[in-house]
Amino acid sequence: MKIALRYRAFLPLLIATIVPFTGLGAPRLSDYIRPFVGTQGEGNTYPVPSAPFGMVQLGPDTDRDLWDTASGYEYSDTSIMGFTLTHLTGTGIPDLGDFLFMPQIGEPKLVVGTKENPDAGYRARYSHEQESASAGYYKVKHLNNDVTIELTAGERAGIMRFTFPQSDHASIMTDLQHFLSGKRFKLIWSHVRVEDNATITGFHLVNGWAKERYLYFAARYSRPFDNHRIMSNGSEVKYDSFRTYRFRSRNEAAGTNLQFLAEYKTRPNEVIMVKVAVSAVSAANALLNLDSEIPDWGFDRVMNETKAKWDRELSRIEIEGSQWDKETFYTGMYHAFLAPNLYEDVTGEYRGLDSNIHRAKKSTNYAVFSLWDTFRATHPLFALIQAKRDADMINSLLAHYDQSADHLLPLWSLQGNETWCMIGYHAVPVIVDGYLKGVKGFDKQRAYNAIRTTAMNPDYDGLEAYRRLGWVPCDQENESASKTLEYAFDDYCVAQMAKALGKKDDYEYFTRRAGSYKNVFDSSTSHVRGKDSQGKWRTPFDPHGYGEGAQNDFTEATAAQYTFYNPQNVPAMIALIGGKEKFAKQLDDLFEYKEPVKSQAAEDIQGRIGEYWHGNEPSHHIIYLYCYAGQPWKAARRLHEVIKTQYGNKPNSLSGNDDCGQMSAWYIFTALGFYPVCPASDYYVIGSPAVPKAVMRLSNGKKFTMQAENLSDENIYVQSVKLNGRNWNTPFLPYRELKNGGTLVFTMGPQPNPAWGVNGPVPECQ
Amino acid sequence: MKIALRYRAFLPLLIATIVPFTGLGAPRLSDYIRPFVGTQGEGNTYPVPSAPFGMVQLGPDTDRDLWDTASGYEYSDTSIMGFTLTHLTGTGIPDLGDFLFMPQIGEPKLVVGTKENPDAGYRARYSHEQESASAGYYKVKHLNNDVTIELTAGERAGIMRFTFPQSDHASIMTDLQHFLSGKRFKLIWSHVRVEDNATITGFHLVNGWAKERYLYFAARYSRPFDNHRIMSNGSEVKYDSFRTYRFRSRNEAAGTNLQFLAEYKTRPNEVIMVKVAVSAVSAANALLNLDSEIPDWGFDRVMNETKAKWDRELSRIEIEGSQWDKETFYTGMYHAFLAPNLYEDVTGEYRGLDSNIHRAKKSTNYAVFSLWDTFRATHPLFALIQAKRDADMINSLLAHYDQSADHLLPLWSLQGNETWCMIGYHAVPVIVDGYLKGVKGFDKQRAYNAIRTTAMNPDYDGLEAYRRLGWVPCDQENESASKTLEYAFDDYCVAQMAKALGKKDDYEYFTRRAGSYKNVFDSSTSHVRGKDSQGKWRTPFDPHGYGEGAQNDFTEATAAQYTFYNPQNVPAMIALIGGKEKFAKQLDDLFEYKEPVKSQAAEDIQGRIGEYWHGNEPSHHIIYLYCYAGQPWKAARRLHEVIKTQYGNKPNSLSGNDDCGQMSAWYIFTALGFYPVCPASDYYVIGSPAVPKAVMRLSNGKKFTMQAENLSDENIYVQSVKLNGRNWNTPFLPYRELKNGGTLVFTMGPQPNPAWGVNGPVPECQ
Repeated sequence: MKIALRYRAFLPLLIATIVPFTGLGAPRLSDYIRPFVGTQGEGNTYPVPSAPFGMVQLGPDTDRDLWDTASGYEYSDTSIMGFTLTHLTGTGIPDLGDFLFMPQIGEPKLVVGTKENPDAGYRARYSHEQESASAGYYKVKHLNNDVTIELTAGERAGIMRFTFPQSDHASIMTDLQHFLSGKRFKLIWSHVRVEDNATITGFHLVNGWAKERYLYFAARYSRPFDNHRIMSNGSEVKYDSFRTYRFRSRNEAAGTNLQFLAEYKTRPNEVIMVKVAVSAVSAANALLNLDSEIPDWGFDRVMNETKAKWDRELSRIEIEGSQWDKETFYTGMYHAFLAPNLYEDVTGEYRGLDSNIHRAKKSTNYAVFSLWDTFRATHPLFALIQAKRDADMINSLLAHYDQSADHLLPLWSLQGNETWCMIGYHAVPVIVDGYLKGVKGFDKQRAYNAIRTTAMNPDYDGLEAYRRLGWVPCDQENESASKTLEYAFDDYCVAQMAKALGKKDDYEYFTRRAGSYKNVFDSSTSHVRGKDSQGKWRTPFDPHGYGEGAQNDFTEATAAQYTFYNPQNVPAMIALIGGKEKFAKQLDDLFEYKEPVKSQAAEDIQGRIGEYWHGNEPSHHIIYLYCYAGQPWKAARRLHEVIKTQYGNKPNSLSGNDDCGQMSAWYIFTALGFYPVCPASDYYVIGSPAVPKAVMRLSNGKKFTMQAENLSDENIYVQSVKLNGRNWNTPFLPYRELKNGGTLVFTMGPQPNPAWGVNGPVPECQ
Repeated sequence: MKIALRYRAFLPLLIATIVPFTGLGAPRLSDYIRPFVGTQGEGNTYPVPSAPFGMVQLGPDTDRDLWDTASGYEYSDTSIMGFTLTHLTGTGIPDLGDFLFMPQIGEPKLVVGTKENPDAGYRARYSHEQESASAGYYKVKHLNNDVTIELTAGERAGIMRFTFPQSDHASIMTDLQHFLSGKRFKLIWSHVRVEDNATITGFHLVNGWAKERYLYFAARYSRPFDNHRIMSNGSEVKYDSFRTYRFRSRNEAAGTNLQFLAEYKTRPNEVIMVKVAVSAVSAANALLNLDSEIPDWGFDRVMNETKAKWDRELSRIEIEGSQWDKETFYTGMYHAFLAPNLYEDVTGEYRGLDSNIHRAKKSTNYAVFSLWDTFRATHPLFALIQAKRDADMINSLLAHYDQSADHLLPLWSLQGNETWCMIGYHAVPVIVDGYLKGVKGFDKQRAYNAIRTTAMNPDYDGLEAYRRLGWVPCDQENESASKTLEYAFDDYCVAQMAKALGKKDDYEYFTRRAGSYKNVFDSSTSHVRGKDSQGKWRTPFDPHGYGEGAQNDFTEATAAQYTFYNPQNVPAMIALIGGKEKFAKQLDDLFEYKEPVKSQAAEDIQGRIGEYWHGNEPSHHIIYLYCYAGQPWKAARRLHEVIKTQYGNKPNSLSGNDDCGQMSAWYIFTALGFYPVCPASDYYVIGSPAVPKAVMRLSNGKKFTMQAENLSDENIYVQSVKLNGRNWNTPFLPYRELKNGGTLVFTMGPQPNPAWGVNGPVPECQ
């Protein structure tokens, strides 16, 4: 009910969509963006205004403690803590939420209050009826004090527009203590400084998910303060000769519990705006970012420019389809284009992994790489339609490598920090897939050197033993089987780049390593399984067991799921399992598995179909494996099931963490009818399209058009395919066909065509 | 006994001084430097190698807790904590002592131990017999582990040379937790990073005397580590799959209790060197500073270059005299030239008061301004013989003003921080004295703007009430009478600059403020006295009372002392007290005062002659006031008493905190026979010289020669004076005579000449 009412705000848009697609009054692509999608439940997205890949992502936080609300905003919460300048999209761990701004009426509160009792602090009650969000815009009204807040964001700067009631004591508080700490992380230090009677700057150093993150901000107010106060541990910072002998300024303070108060007497409906910007380099750069990007008070200009940027980004793939299709698809693109984030100032400077200030040369620097997730579909999507940015991102990965004390490409990098989160070295597939897909603008030899050095690191996560034994031994290393399998895939990628660069020895060496699947495959159980340094299997062994912490051989998954992880050589995997029939049967078993007792440990992974957990990445490629087994119709069925039940246009539509766009990128590829099961290979796997028509504007300038004739909720099975006019009978789409543009025409029907996609060679990527 | 033995190390020098002053084998001026002077007792100096005004001041710490050992080194301590890269010279409050390095044998200890039980930690016992220090060089041998440590320093970088015994487990520890915390200050954060197998960098953020101080270091080792370890809270930082899942590096760590261990197997007498540098900007800049200044391993080269720099600096005043005279005088010059400190990297960058990175334009940036002390004699000395540096320092003060959120010139600035220590706005006399003494290289209009804005600050320390009432009211402000008196002097300086710039209104306005002495002079007691906002005197009132904290009207002094603080208008002061006789009598009373009960509060202020406390600055000009009263011989007697009892060449020779050179600058001027009682005036007061001859090389290229004929321990009274060949009968030396060079010839005798210096006009500076 609440949700339905909430959509009243979009009523004009819904009406507008009746108008034909072209011409005056037609909806713009950005009008289909539904920022609330994924904000309820496990999606962990946010409704905050952001430019594409923006540095400032400025919006409401409702929670700072729960890992289940890692983006800071949970749609089910009924009060807002305030508005912060940065956010992570879809991650499973909280961080950012830097620098909270909150308008108040009356004597300002300095503590936040609780969800149960928001009035005990500055938390404000709100209702979704009086909240709306669209591309580059967010609006909410506080129920307790009648202040209306509107937000918009450019790339490095944003504007908050506050409409106050008449009051003798209105204020805008900045709480420097706030960030998304997940109850576990710590604010190390902060300071705030009054630059003039309408400008402040500030800083904090956070020991968060990122162990040592420096961030500065600048804020300019449209009206000079009537009064300003800095509060430290609840007391005003001011010179008092008899008490505060040493520190005599009321214009700056440092510490760990600081608030700044801009105080005003307001007229009825008085609008006061605050422009804000961030920088990882310095307060001076934050001011520069602010003044360069928003020299005026043009809230609407900034909002419209950001909306126009989204129109341009979304036009990289234009689809036809229902309102649901369009809202789901364009919101998916929106989510896929929120991260990685721009991470350099207008000067080109940024704070690197070594804490030094660097300047990206001939490239734009990005941060926030959730690589264990995004190597799968997000970056492969970028390689096709965001090649310029993908090159910039690859250069950002290489810069990280150059700055790494451990000589490693990033695992999960966050604003000049390595979070050491997850496993593998999946910057490698990102770089190699980019290279092989023609992404230009990075030095391939430098890239190869970084890739190879990373893959040969002597200290990293059991890698030395893996090199020696062929597997990561489970008595020496946690998540050993998953590591073995993912190293093997990454090594396949190294081998592909070595081959392309004519490094024959390396190609052979890494190809050998890429075959490590067999070393952890236990034919007696037909599953991958932990193996110790003596070659003995982990005992006892439950293929469906899900563990955490020590003595756990798999990463956020079960053996049954990881058994299907050998994307670089599915034929070998099929052979080990005993042929296509047995392989397909084992897939069926996965989807039909009935969990005897609901696992507690994995409760945050949802989107479950049997033991297929779409809510987490290890499952993402699995449905497509039916296509290798000669049963593509089973893939079609499951793909449509996932799309219709785990995606959509509602706050609770996303079944799992969006993980910086991976969940959404899966949708985009799948809706288009194909998916990169094996990044860095030369083919995609054809599944079953979910939109009637799509035109991809490839970064090389070509257009690739997908059409799904007769597609409907019932007609989900591929009857036949024509690729550039030719009949195409295998469920594999070569990159060489795609890259030159052309058309892929599906004919869909209500029943499987058992003759399509069952024969023909199965790609072996070695 | 210990001290006498200690001087064995200098035996070759003592022999060398028998050789005539010129020619081969003659001692160099720097040979007279005795770095231990002031390290015992209240002097708070240090024996650490430093270039003149150096950024790195690299040496031993024996204490980090006691404010009485604010430099980190107390000669009476019998164990050394380690060797740190930065130090403050002569201050009363501890800070710096950044980044401790300590060689160890055996399993390294990570805690420091105590003075009582040094072996409980890494503290090392030492003996002064096996310790020596000279210009740019320090050496000590650890008694407990047979390691010899030698140190030298360039400007931004230094070298440590460790000579190890044979050992299977020698190590050099870096303790990032250490700084001179005075038990009250806090390390906020630190990190360390292994750059390669013989290089580390690190950082800490300290909430010390300076509230928010960022410092980076870099260290390169002459031999690659056999092994390295980072310790955090006592445990090795390393990846352990089963325990330390998240953080996987052994090459970097962050936290608040970190140590880095470089570990070696050593041969007998093996020398391992560590080059170190600091930067307030970044680790990259620390490395740049290091590699630019010390590209090789030339310990002796660095040491010799620094020694040569000291020779050049000391040659600005060359004296004749006894070994005691020379050691005392050149050590005094050495101390006067240790601070302010260079505070910019080889790139010209530094971290400013606003935490931003700035680049000094056409100027060199300095930090560590102990202005309440150094405006008196140190900067007036610089104006004469260090004009280029004084201009750079003035530009540094102006940059601080530009960066100040409070629009204030510095009070006591420390590496990009305002410590808000002491009172007044004594950057003003520094700038104005410099300007009037012809210091070139700063923008006078910009300077005047900063001066005037500072003097008109609406928030600072009772200044608004002072402007309104004519005094700082004691019911509203602590140390009110001292503030009134010092503001009045500073205002005199503002007036002088206003006059020079033709700003007549300002001249009159600030001249009026400069007359505020009369507003706090209570003729009923013949003393200055606290006065409240209603104009009522502080009651009860004890002119000899010494208080601290609230309800105290004087700053580290008594009313009896501050009664003599009106240097800008001594005739007015004399008139208020009732004429020269009464004035001289009140001076006599001060020197002859017998303290009824020893004050506890002021116990750290020594050098007492009655109530004249030479160990603290409020007394420094007082002896010279006898010259205004027609009794210059009393000045002569007291000056010689102070010089012979409170200065010298021994560790315990300094009676009070050297305060970044002020105690020493007092000595230098006094030894030359004149003193700047009223900086920013056009005259010095002639006292009684303490060396037979001195040649000052003025910064304008002129030479000014002082000769004291017949000077001896008995012949301390001025009989007559010739200035440039003319008889000179007043005890006032005009700057206009000095500045063109020339000669000042004293004839000294054993009895006062009651005819010399008693008549003639007494300067009134208004």
